[in-house]
Amino acid sequence: MIFDVEVKISLKKGMLNPEASTIERALDLLGYKVENTKTIETIKFQIKENDASKVEIEVEDMCQRLLCNPIIHDYEINILNS
Amino acid sequence: MIFDVEVKISLKKGMLNPEASTIERALDLLGYKVENTKTIETIKFQIKENDASKVEIEVEDMCQRLLCNPIIHDYEINILNS
Repeated sequence: MIFDVEVKISLKKGMLNPEASTIERALDLLGYKVENTKTIETIKFQIKENDASKVEIEVEDMCQRLLCNPIIHDYEINILNS
Repeated sequence: MIFDVEVKISLKKGMLNPEASTIERALDLLGYKVENTKTIETIKFQIKENDASKVEIEVEDMCQRLLCNPIIHDYEINILNS
């Protein structure tokens, strides 16, 4: 079976987000007043596996080992049967 | 009124995505076989405005002028009344 996987990665609360501050400042310079800017990175991919629980374990592993830095990132995993 | 705005930015179909290819290759090196990797950047912020239609026009403008490169990016705007 092919599963659609989506991993949403954001910075933990309290972490500085220079990308978001830059966007906010640049928008301000153009005359747009926005607040509480946040950025989220989403990684989507497909994976072939027999059952969803295996995919869950595998993707959790990928997050810990490569996709995220658990010290500074929060992540959310969504798995869909495609 | 305060509106919650979410802008999802992805590369247009057919555009090369070196970030996604790197992720896919790195996952492969760790023994995870994944396919069709895509990345999406989400920018969230809040904006004070009187009505939603004004926000829509303003955010569309922000995307065209700063947040996206309309030549290579597709974008999707979601506006919520918070």
